[in-house]
Amino acid sequence: MTIDTTDIESAAARILPHVRRTPVLTVSGREPGLARPVTFKLELLQHAGSFKPRGAFNRILTAREAGELPASGVIAASGGNHGAAVAYVGRALGVTAEIFVPESTPLAKCARIEGFGAHLVRTGAAYADALAASRIRQAETGALEVHAYDHDDVLAGQGTVAREFATDAPDLTHVLVATGGGGLIGGVAAWYASRITVVSVEPESCPTLHDALAAGRPVPAAVGGLAADSLGARQVGARMFPIAKAHVGASVLVSDASIVAAQSWLWEHLRLVAEPGGATALAALLSRAWLAPEGARIGVILCGANTDPAKVA
Amino acid sequence: MTIDTTDIESAAARILPHVRRTPVLTVSGREPGLARPVTFKLELLQHAGSFKPRGAFNRILTAREAGELPASGVIAASGGNHGAAVAYVGRALGVTAEIFVPESTPLAKCARIEGFGAHLVRTGAAYADALAASRIRQAETGALEVHAYDHDDVLAGQGTVAREFATDAPDLTHVLVATGGGGLIGGVAAWYASRITVVSVEPESCPTLHDALAAGRPVPAAVGGLAADSLGARQVGARMFPIAKAHVGASVLVSDASIVAAQSWLWEHLRLVAEPGGATALAALLSRAWLAPEGARIGVILCGANTDPAKVA
Repeated sequence: MTIDTTDIESAAARILPHVRRTPVLTVSGREPGLARPVTFKLELLQHAGSFKPRGAFNRILTAREAGELPASGVIAASGGNHGAAVAYVGRALGVTAEIFVPESTPLAKCARIEGFGAHLVRTGAAYADALAASRIRQAETGALEVHAYDHDDVLAGQGTVAREFATDAPDLTHVLVATGGGGLIGGVAAWYASRITVVSVEPESCPTLHDALAAGRPVPAAVGGLAADSLGARQVGARMFPIAKAHVGASVLVSDASIVAAQSWLWEHLRLVAEPGGATALAALLSRAWLAPEGARIGVILCGANTDPAKVA
Repeated sequence: MTIDTTDIESAAARILPHVRRTPVLTVSGREPGLARPVTFKLELLQHAGSFKPRGAFNRILTAREAGELPASGVIAASGGNHGAAVAYVGRALGVTAEIFVPESTPLAKCARIEGFGAHLVRTGAAYADALAASRIRQAETGALEVHAYDHDDVLAGQGTVAREFATDAPDLTHVLVATGGGGLIGGVAAWYASRITVVSVEPESCPTLHDALAAGRPVPAAVGGLAADSLGARQVGARMFPIAKAHVGASVLVSDASIVAAQSWLWEHLRLVAEPGGATALAALLSRAWLAPEGARIGVILCGANTDPAKVA
């Protein structure tokens, strides 16, 4: 396997001084639209508004420990959240950061990246185009590439979300996770290692893992819809795919309308603002795209909040 | 003393099946504007968007246990949050609720009250006017009055916030709490009973407890400014005042501008939406209206989120 619990334990020790221990909140099965209790991991309260700093800290700190952090700093391509995270980590550690995002990245995320002091380049139609451009630039500068998902140090960092969730909600039988490039679910599935069922949830318009599992290997998928800026990776990472094949128990798709409904539910009933990608896992439960088996004890990771809050009300 | 920890323990057992155990989140002293770590009690994630259901459940369940809940149900006056809470509790327990709010109550709160199925009456310029009108109506219907703050069962219910906070963050030396009519801080101060320092924070434009402590008794204060819909009680409750005299360690005032800054800080750095009254306690820390002594371990209760999220961005 590409990474395992040992790597995630190492990552947790490494990033501990730098990331927030995000809390969990359990709501009862009497809440509107729920048939049984649900425990939320409030990872949308993480630094820079998503889980992404965990992987970015682990990648950059590991390189620094190995003496492999060049003077030119770090470079990353992103739909927005990873870029904000790398910019945040760069500022926290005193490392220069250059971030490539596609033209489709929301202005709120661009402002956040620049607000953390990174150099921002907007180029290309989708994440994959920004990635290609960032690699041309990386060859010029020699900066350390911090991949948004397809690197073992990034996967291990994201896996620390599951390590905390397992400690704070030890009785769960199923955890629902949104999937884009697969960094988060790769880390989560590596942590749980089939001890509980990890459910992948993707928009119908960005079915990267769904298509990969059907094909038996990572393949290009459509990139579109409401959550494309956070989940529109075109295809899942090569490093996460063996983990997903072994340890992702179900893969479901949800409509954009159900994602909007989940965002509204979170504001109306919990007073939480989630971006589309951050509400996607919950959408599978509320829309019944995923049906919980009898006796399931369900966890849902709320993984991002980088949106204009006016959009959720 | 009017209530003590025994009353709060009883309230906690009574309301346990009905309220959310809201989580805490600790952020480091490296966060912008903070000099030391702060632990937040995320009570703004409670049902109906504020701490108020705790007191309302305890009041109504206590009456029901005693066989004192009339067929005409419950009646309450409120600036908005207590009304939403009583409406929520009424729906949860199958009890008819009639809610009086002043004309100044934000439409978002009115919609929430009606959304929970309560009968809403808008009358008078401020909370105290709505209270007077509700008492005339109560004399006609015989409904159970659920006071927004000045009742021991309400105080004991709100005190359960501190009981949970003390369990989840046992090392705090200071807790900052926003004060309006004094229900929350009365319950919190009764729980901590001077074992740690409870700091009252009020807007300069609604200084109910500040003026009462100066006068040695509850006295009418100004009602105005940004947080008036949640903190504009005109004067603190008679039942909470002896608790405050004995167990509130400091009383500070903050400007409306500092409240807006605290709301912005919460969105920018934590991705939390707080209403003005919900961000008032934090405003004292960020604006340095209250200065933490050396070695303080600080808790802040974020107590309400019933606002238009577009206003915080």
